[in-house]
Amino acid sequence: MKKMQNALEFSHQLLSNHVNAGDTVIDGTVGNGHDTLFLAQLVGSRGTVYGFDIQERAIQQTQERLTAAPINHTHVHLFNRGHQEIASVLPPMAQVSGAIFNLGYLPGGNKQLITHAETTIQGLRGCISHLTVGGIIVIVVYYGHPGGQTEKNQVDNFCAALPQKQFAVLKYEFINQVHQPPFVLGIQKVS
Amino acid sequence: MKKMQNALEFSHQLLSNHVNAGDTVIDGTVGNGHDTLFLAQLVGSRGTVYGFDIQERAIQQTQERLTAAPINHTHVHLFNRGHQEIASVLPPMAQVSGAIFNLGYLPGGNKQLITHAETTIQGLRGCISHLTVGGIIVIVVYYGHPGGQTEKNQVDNFCAALPQKQFAVLKYEFINQVHQPPFVLGIQKVS
Repeated sequence: MKKMQNALEFSHQLLSNHVNAGDTVIDGTVGNGHDTLFLAQLVGSRGTVYGFDIQERAIQQTQERLTAAPINHTHVHLFNRGHQEIASVLPPMAQVSGAIFNLGYLPGGNKQLITHAETTIQGLRGCISHLTVGGIIVIVVYYGHPGGQTEKNQVDNFCAALPQKQFAVLKYEFINQVHQPPFVLGIQKVS
Repeated sequence: MKKMQNALEFSHQLLSNHVNAGDTVIDGTVGNGHDTLFLAQLVGSRGTVYGFDIQERAIQQTQERLTAAPINHTHVHLFNRGHQEIASVLPPMAQVSGAIFNLGYLPGGNKQLITHAETTIQGLRGCISHLTVGGIIVIVVYYGHPGGQTEKNQVDNFCAALPQKQFAVLKYEFINQVHQPPFVLGIQKVS
Protein backbone atom coordinates (compact mmCIF):
# COMPACT_ATOMS: atom_id res chain seq x y z
CA MET A 1 0.00 0.00 0.00
CA LYS A 2 1.23 3.45 -0.90
CA LYS A 3 0.44 5.63 2.10
CA MET A 4 -0.16 9.35 2.02
CA GLN A 5 3.11 11.18 2.63
CA ASN A 6 3.90 11.70 6.32
CA ALA A 7 5.18 15.03 7.63
CA LEU A 8 8.85 14.21 6.99
CA GLU A 9 8.21 13.00 3.43
CA PHE A 10 6.00 15.99 2.65
CA SER A 11 8.60 18.43 4.03
CA HIS A 12 11.15 17.03 1.58
CA GLN A 13 8.57 17.05 -1.22
CA LEU A 14 7.97 20.78 -0.70
CA LEU A 15 11.71 21.53 -0.71
CA SER A 16 12.23 19.42 -3.84
CA ASN A 17 9.37 21.24 -5.58
CA HIS A 18 10.72 24.72 -4.91
CA VAL A 19 14.51 24.49 -4.59
CA ASN A 20 16.80 24.08 -7.61
CA ALA A 21 20.42 23.11 -8.12
CA GLY A 22 22.70 26.08 -7.47
CA ASP A 23 20.35 27.70 -4.93
CA THR A 24 21.17 28.93 -1.44
CA VAL A 25 19.26 27.25 1.41
CA ILE A 26 19.16 27.15 5.21
CA ASP A 27 18.84 24.34 7.73
CA GLY A 28 17.67 26.17 10.84
CA THR A 29 17.99 23.09 13.09
CA VAL A 30 20.61 20.70 11.72
CA GLY A 31 20.03 18.14 14.51
CA ASN A 32 21.31 14.75 13.37
CA GLY A 33 22.08 16.16 9.90
CA HIS A 34 19.59 14.22 7.78
CA ASP A 35 17.98 17.36 6.37
CA THR A 36 21.34 19.09 5.94
CA LEU A 37 22.53 16.23 3.76
CA PHE A 38 19.23 16.26 1.86
CA LEU A 39 19.63 20.00 1.19
CA ALA A 40 23.30 19.59 0.21
CA GLN A 41 22.27 17.06 -2.44
CA LEU A 42 19.33 19.18 -3.59
CA VAL A 43 21.37 22.33 -4.31
CA GLY A 44 24.50 20.47 -5.43
CA SER A 45 28.07 21.73 -5.29
CA ARG A 46 27.19 24.96 -7.11
CA GLY A 47 24.69 25.79 -4.35
CA THR A 48 25.19 26.86 -0.74
CA VAL A 49 23.81 25.42 2.50
CA TYR A 50 23.90 27.33 5.80
CA GLY A 51 23.25 25.08 8.79
CA PHE A 52 22.56 26.20 12.36
CA ASP A 53 22.34 24.40 15.68
CA ILE A 54 22.85 25.62 19.21
CA GLN A 55 24.06 22.13 20.31
CA GLU A 56 27.69 21.33 19.53
CA ARG A 57 26.84 17.63 19.41
CA ALA A 58 24.42 18.26 16.56
CA ILE A 59 27.04 20.15 14.57
CA GLN A 60 29.55 17.31 15.10
CA GLN A 61 27.04 14.62 14.07
CA THR A 62 26.11 16.57 10.98
CA GLN A 63 29.75 17.14 10.04
CA GLU A 64 30.37 13.39 10.36
CA ARG A 65 27.30 12.55 8.29
CA LEU A 66 28.39 14.92 5.53
CA THR A 67 31.94 13.57 5.54
CA ALA A 68 30.69 9.98 5.31
CA ALA A 69 28.33 10.76 2.42
CA PRO A 70 29.53 10.32 -1.16
CA ILE A 71 29.22 14.01 -1.95
CA ASN A 72 31.36 17.09 -2.06
CA HIS A 73 30.27 19.14 0.95
CA THR A 74 32.52 22.18 0.77
CA HIS A 75 29.38 24.19 -0.02
CA VAL A 76 27.87 23.39 3.39
CA HIS A 77 28.61 25.93 6.11
CA LEU A 78 27.76 24.84 9.65
CA PHE A 79 27.40 27.26 12.55
CA ASN A 80 27.24 26.23 16.21
CA ARG A 81 24.82 29.09 16.84
CA GLY A 82 21.07 29.31 17.34
CA HIS A 83 18.80 30.00 14.38
CA GLN A 84 17.88 33.36 15.94
CA GLU A 85 21.27 34.48 14.58
CA ILE A 86 20.53 33.60 10.95
CA ALA A 87 20.06 37.24 9.94
CA SER A 88 23.44 38.25 11.39
CA VAL A 89 25.37 35.28 9.92
CA LEU A 90 24.10 35.32 6.33
CA PRO A 91 25.73 37.70 3.84
CA PRO A 92 23.39 40.72 3.68
CA MET A 93 22.55 40.19 0.00
CA ALA A 94 22.06 36.39 0.19
CA GLN A 95 18.91 35.21 -1.58
CA VAL A 96 17.49 32.01 -0.14
CA SER A 97 15.03 29.72 -1.97
CA GLY A 98 14.49 27.19 0.80
CA ALA A 99 14.79 26.67 4.54
CA ILE A 100 13.82 23.97 6.98
CA PHE A 101 13.17 24.00 10.72
CA ASN A 102 12.48 20.91 12.84
CA LEU A 103 10.91 22.09 16.08
CA GLY A 104 11.24 20.10 19.29
CA TYR A 105 14.34 18.39 20.71
CA LEU A 106 17.38 16.68 19.19
CA PRO A 107 16.48 13.00 18.65
CA GLY A 108 18.70 10.97 20.93
CA GLY A 109 19.84 14.10 22.74
CA ASN A 110 18.80 15.96 25.87
CA LYS A 111 15.00 16.28 25.79
CA GLN A 112 15.21 19.33 28.06
CA LEU A 113 16.88 21.27 25.28
CA ILE A 114 13.96 22.23 23.07
CA THR A 115 13.29 24.92 20.53
CA HIS A 116 11.27 27.86 21.86
CA ALA A 117 8.73 30.06 20.12
CA GLU A 118 10.63 33.30 20.63
CA THR A 119 13.91 32.18 19.08
CA THR A 120 12.12 30.04 16.46
CA ILE A 121 10.17 33.09 15.28
CA GLN A 122 13.37 35.18 15.26
CA GLY A 123 14.90 32.49 13.05
CA LEU A 124 11.88 32.48 10.75
CA ARG A 125 12.04 36.27 10.46
CA GLY A 126 15.73 35.96 9.57
CA CYS A 127 14.92 33.50 6.79
CA ILE A 128 12.00 35.58 5.55
CA SER A 129 14.23 38.63 5.19
CA HIS A 130 16.43 36.65 2.75
CA LEU A 131 13.67 34.68 1.00
CA THR A 132 13.40 35.02 -2.75
CA VAL A 133 10.01 35.24 -4.51
CA GLY A 134 8.84 31.66 -4.97
CA GLY A 135 11.10 30.49 -2.14
CA ILE A 136 9.77 28.39 0.71
CA ILE A 137 10.33 27.91 4.43
CA VAL A 138 9.29 24.48 5.70
CA ILE A 139 8.63 23.92 9.41
CA VAL A 140 8.14 20.43 10.81
CA VAL A 141 6.35 20.96 14.12
CA TYR A 142 6.88 18.27 16.76
CA TYR A 143 4.84 19.26 19.80
CA GLY A 144 4.14 16.13 21.87
CA HIS A 145 6.86 16.99 24.44
CA PRO A 146 6.50 19.33 27.46
CA GLY A 147 6.57 22.90 26.14
CA GLY A 148 5.75 21.78 22.61
CA GLN A 149 2.14 22.90 22.68
CA THR A 150 3.10 26.46 23.64
CA GLU A 151 5.62 26.77 20.83
CA LYS A 152 3.17 25.18 18.37
CA ASN A 153 0.47 27.73 19.17
CA GLN A 154 2.76 30.73 18.88
CA VAL A 155 4.39 29.55 15.66
CA ASP A 156 0.95 28.75 14.22
CA ASN A 157 -0.25 32.25 15.09
CA PHE A 158 2.86 33.88 13.65
CA CYS A 159 2.44 32.00 10.37
CA ALA A 160 -1.33 32.54 10.11
CA ALA A 161 -0.77 36.30 10.52
CA LEU A 162 1.67 36.62 7.60
CA PRO A 163 0.09 38.93 4.99
CA GLN A 164 -1.41 36.95 2.12
CA LYS A 165 -0.28 39.46 -0.51
CA GLN A 166 3.34 38.51 0.20
CA PHE A 167 3.01 34.96 1.56
CA ALA A 168 0.99 31.78 1.17
CA VAL A 169 1.01 29.65 4.32
CA LEU A 170 0.08 25.99 4.04
CA LYS A 171 -0.64 23.58 6.87
CA TYR A 172 -0.37 19.81 6.23
CA GLU A 173 -1.66 17.83 9.18
CA PHE A 174 -3.08 14.42 10.07
CA ILE A 175 -6.13 15.24 12.19
CA ASN A 176 -7.33 11.87 13.53
CA GLN A 177 -4.17 10.78 15.34
CA VAL A 178 -4.05 10.30 19.11
CA HIS A 179 -0.29 10.67 19.59
CA GLN A 180 0.29 14.14 18.16
CA PRO A 181 2.43 13.31 15.13
CA PRO A 182 4.34 16.26 13.67
CA PHE A 183 2.67 18.51 11.10
CA VAL A 184 4.15 20.71 8.40
CA LEU A 185 3.88 24.44 7.80
CA GLY A 186 5.01 25.81 4.45
CA ILE A 187 5.59 29.55 4.03
CA GLN A 188 6.04 30.62 0.41
CA LYS A 189 6.90 34.16 -0.62
CA VAL A 190 4.50 34.90 -3.48
CA SER A 191 5.39 38.54 -4.26
CA MET B 1 7.20 31.12 -10.00
CA LYS B 2 5.99 27.64 -9.16
CA LYS B 3 3.37 28.09 -6.46
CA MET B 4 2.46 25.51 -3.84
CA GLN B 5 -0.44 23.40 -5.11
CA ASN B 6 -3.85 24.89 -4.40
CA ALA B 7 -6.72 22.76 -3.06
CA LEU B 8 -7.94 21.71 -6.51
CA GLU B 9 -4.45 20.74 -7.69
CA PHE B 10 -3.69 18.88 -4.48
CA SER B 11 -7.01 16.97 -4.65
CA HIS B 12 -6.03 15.67 -8.10
CA GLN B 13 -2.50 14.92 -6.88
CA LEU B 14 -3.88 12.71 -4.10
CA LEU B 15 -6.16 10.85 -6.51
CA SER B 16 -3.31 10.38 -9.01
CA ASN B 17 -1.08 9.04 -6.25
CA HIS B 18 -3.54 6.41 -5.04
CA VAL B 19 -5.75 5.45 -8.00
CA ASN B 20 -4.54 3.18 -10.80
CA ALA B 21 -5.76 2.31 -14.29
CA GLY B 22 -8.54 -0.28 -14.10
CA ASP B 23 -9.78 0.85 -10.67
CA THR B 24 -13.33 1.71 -9.61
CA VAL B 25 -13.89 5.27 -8.37
CA ILE B 26 -16.70 7.61 -7.31
CA ASP B 27 -17.46 11.24 -8.01
CA GLY B 28 -19.85 12.13 -5.20
CA THR B 29 -20.65 15.58 -6.63
CA VAL B 30 -20.19 15.61 -10.41
CA GLY B 31 -21.13 19.32 -10.70
CA ASN B 32 -19.73 20.67 -13.97
CA GLY B 33 -18.00 17.35 -14.67
CA HIS B 34 -14.36 18.40 -14.50
CA ASP B 35 -13.50 15.86 -11.81
CA THR B 36 -15.61 13.14 -13.48
CA LEU B 37 -13.58 13.56 -16.66
CA PHE B 38 -10.35 13.57 -14.64
CA LEU B 39 -11.36 10.31 -12.94
CA ALA B 40 -12.46 8.74 -16.24
CA GLN B 41 -9.00 9.42 -17.67
CA LEU B 42 -7.27 8.22 -14.51
CA VAL B 43 -8.92 4.78 -14.42
CA GLY B 44 -9.12 4.41 -18.22
CA SER B 45 -11.60 2.32 -20.16
CA ARG B 46 -10.85 -0.81 -18.09
CA GLY B 47 -11.91 1.06 -14.94
CA THR B 48 -15.30 2.23 -13.71
CA VAL B 49 -16.53 5.65 -12.61
CA TYR B 50 -19.77 6.15 -10.66
CA GLY B 51 -20.92 9.77 -10.67
CA PHE B 52 -23.67 11.28 -8.50
CA ASP B 53 -25.45 14.62 -8.48
CA ILE B 54 -28.85 15.61 -7.20
CA GLN B 55 -29.12 18.37 -9.85
CA GLU B 56 -30.22 17.25 -13.31
CA ARG B 57 -28.36 20.18 -14.85
CA ALA B 58 -25.08 18.89 -13.41
CA ILE B 59 -25.65 15.42 -14.87
CA GLN B 60 -26.42 16.95 -18.29
CA GLN B 61 -23.33 19.19 -18.22
CA THR B 62 -21.15 16.28 -17.22
CA GLN B 63 -22.59 14.03 -19.94
CA GLU B 64 -21.86 16.76 -22.49
CA ARG B 65 -18.31 17.23 -21.21
CA LEU B 66 -17.62 13.51 -21.40
CA THR B 67 -19.09 13.26 -24.90
CA ALA B 68 -16.99 16.20 -26.11
CA ALA B 69 -13.77 14.76 -24.65
CA PRO B 70 -11.52 12.59 -26.81
CA ILE B 71 -12.05 9.53 -24.62
CA ASN B 72 -14.20 6.45 -24.49
CA HIS B 73 -16.64 7.09 -21.64
CA THR B 74 -18.79 3.98 -21.63
CA HIS B 75 -17.17 3.13 -18.28
CA VAL B 76 -18.69 6.24 -16.64
CA HIS B 77 -22.06 5.72 -14.99
CA LEU B 78 -23.93 8.88 -14.00
CA PHE B 79 -26.81 8.93 -11.53
CA ASN B 80 -29.15 11.87 -11.00
CA ARG B 81 -29.33 10.99 -7.32
CA GLY B 82 -27.75 12.44 -4.19
CA HIS B 83 -24.52 11.00 -2.85
CA GLN B 84 -26.39 9.78 0.24
CA GLU B 85 -27.58 6.96 -2.08
CA ILE B 86 -24.08 5.75 -3.02
CA ALA B 87 -24.34 2.66 -0.81
CA SER B 88 -27.63 1.58 -2.40
CA VAL B 89 -26.52 2.24 -6.00
CA LEU B 90 -23.11 0.54 -6.00
CA PRO B 91 -22.91 -3.21 -6.56
CA PRO B 92 -22.57 -4.71 -3.05
CA MET B 93 -19.14 -6.18 -3.73
CA ALA B 94 -17.68 -3.12 -5.51
CA GLN B 95 -14.20 -2.18 -4.26
CA VAL B 96 -13.42 1.50 -4.65
CA SER B 97 -9.88 2.97 -4.62
CA GLY B 98 -10.81 6.63 -4.92
CA ALA B 99 -13.66 9.08 -4.42
CA ILE B 100 -14.04 12.83 -4.59
CA PHE B 101 -16.56 15.22 -3.06
CA ASN B 102 -16.71 18.94 -3.77
CA LEU B 103 -18.74 20.54 -0.99
CA GLY B 104 -20.69 23.76 -1.54
CA TYR B 105 -22.86 24.77 -4.51
CA LEU B 106 -22.74 24.05 -8.24
CA PRO B 107 -20.53 26.75 -9.84
CA GLY B 108 -22.76 28.81 -12.14
CA GLY B 109 -25.88 27.18 -10.66
CA ASN B 110 -28.36 28.02 -7.92
CA LYS B 111 -26.35 29.07 -4.87
CA GLN B 112 -29.26 28.10 -2.63
CA LEU B 113 -28.72 24.44 -3.54
CA ILE B 114 -25.80 23.46 -1.33
CA THR B 115 -24.44 20.25 0.07
CA HIS B 116 -25.39 19.58 3.69
CA ALA B 117 -23.46 17.83 6.44
CA GLU B 118 -26.02 15.10 7.02
CA THR B 119 -26.22 13.87 3.42
CA THR B 120 -22.50 14.52 2.83
CA ILE B 121 -21.61 12.28 5.77
CA GLN B 122 -24.07 9.62 4.54
CA GLY B 123 -22.27 9.76 1.20
CA LEU B 124 -18.86 9.49 2.89
CA ARG B 125 -20.06 6.49 4.89
CA GLY B 126 -21.27 4.90 1.66
CA CYS B 127 -17.84 5.35 0.07
CA ILE B 128 -16.03 4.14 3.19
CA SER B 129 -18.04 0.89 3.16
CA HIS B 130 -16.67 0.15 -0.34
CA LEU B 131 -13.15 1.54 0.15
CA THR B 132 -10.25 -0.82 -0.48
CA VAL B 133 -7.15 -0.81 1.76
CA GLY B 134 -4.90 1.96 0.42
CA GLY B 135 -7.89 3.67 -1.21
CA ILE B 136 -8.61 7.35 -0.63
CA ILE B 137 -11.59 9.68 -0.32
CA VAL B 138 -10.79 13.29 -1.18
CA ILE B 139 -13.07 16.10 0.00
CA VAL B 140 -12.65 19.65 -1.29
CA VAL B 141 -14.40 21.81 1.29
CA TYR B 142 -15.75 25.15 0.03
CA TYR B 143 -17.32 26.93 3.01
CA GLY B 144 -17.43 30.67 2.26
CA HIS B 145 -21.18 30.57 1.40
CA PRO B 146 -24.10 30.77 3.87
CA GLY B 147 -24.38 27.37 5.53
CA GLY B 148 -20.86 26.39 4.53
CA GLN B 149 -19.34 26.88 7.96
CA THR B 150 -21.84 24.50 9.59
CA GLU B 151 -21.18 21.76 7.07
CA LYS B 152 -17.41 22.33 7.35
CA ASN B 153 -17.44 21.88 11.13
CA GLN B 154 -19.53 18.72 11.04
CA VAL B 155 -17.53 17.12 8.22
CA ASP B 156 -14.29 18.08 9.99
CA ASN B 157 -15.53 16.45 13.19
CA PHE B 158 -16.68 13.31 11.38
CA CYS B 159 -13.28 12.92 9.70
CA ALA B 160 -11.25 13.69 12.84
CA ALA B 161 -13.18 10.98 14.71
CA LEU B 162 -12.36 8.19 12.23
CA PRO B 163 -10.33 5.53 14.09
CA GLN B 164 -6.63 5.82 13.28
CA LYS B 165 -6.13 2.06 13.18
CA GLN B 166 -8.29 1.91 10.04
CA PHE B 167 -7.90 5.41 8.59
CA ALA B 168 -5.40 8.21 8.16
CA VAL B 169 -7.07 11.60 7.78
CA LEU B 170 -5.06 14.44 6.27
CA LYS B 171 -5.98 18.11 6.17
CA TYR B 172 -4.32 20.39 3.59
CA GLU B 173 -5.18 24.02 4.22
CA PHE B 174 -3.89 27.53 3.55
CA ILE B 175 -4.15 29.24 6.94
CA ASN B 176 -3.34 32.91 6.26
CA GLN B 177 -6.05 33.66 3.68
CA VAL B 178 -8.83 36.17 4.34
CA HIS B 179 -11.36 34.86 1.83
CA GLN B 180 -11.82 31.28 3.03
CA PRO B 181 -10.37 29.37 0.08
CA PRO B 182 -11.31 25.69 -0.05
CA PHE B 183 -9.24 23.14 1.83
CA VAL B 184 -8.74 19.42 1.26
CA LEU B 185 -9.46 16.44 3.49
CA GLY B 186 -7.99 13.09 2.50
CA ILE B 187 -9.29 9.90 4.13
CA GLN B 188 -7.14 6.84 3.43
CA LYS B 189 -8.05 3.35 4.57
CA VAL B 190 -4.83 1.98 6.04
CA SER B 191 -5.99 -1.44 7.28
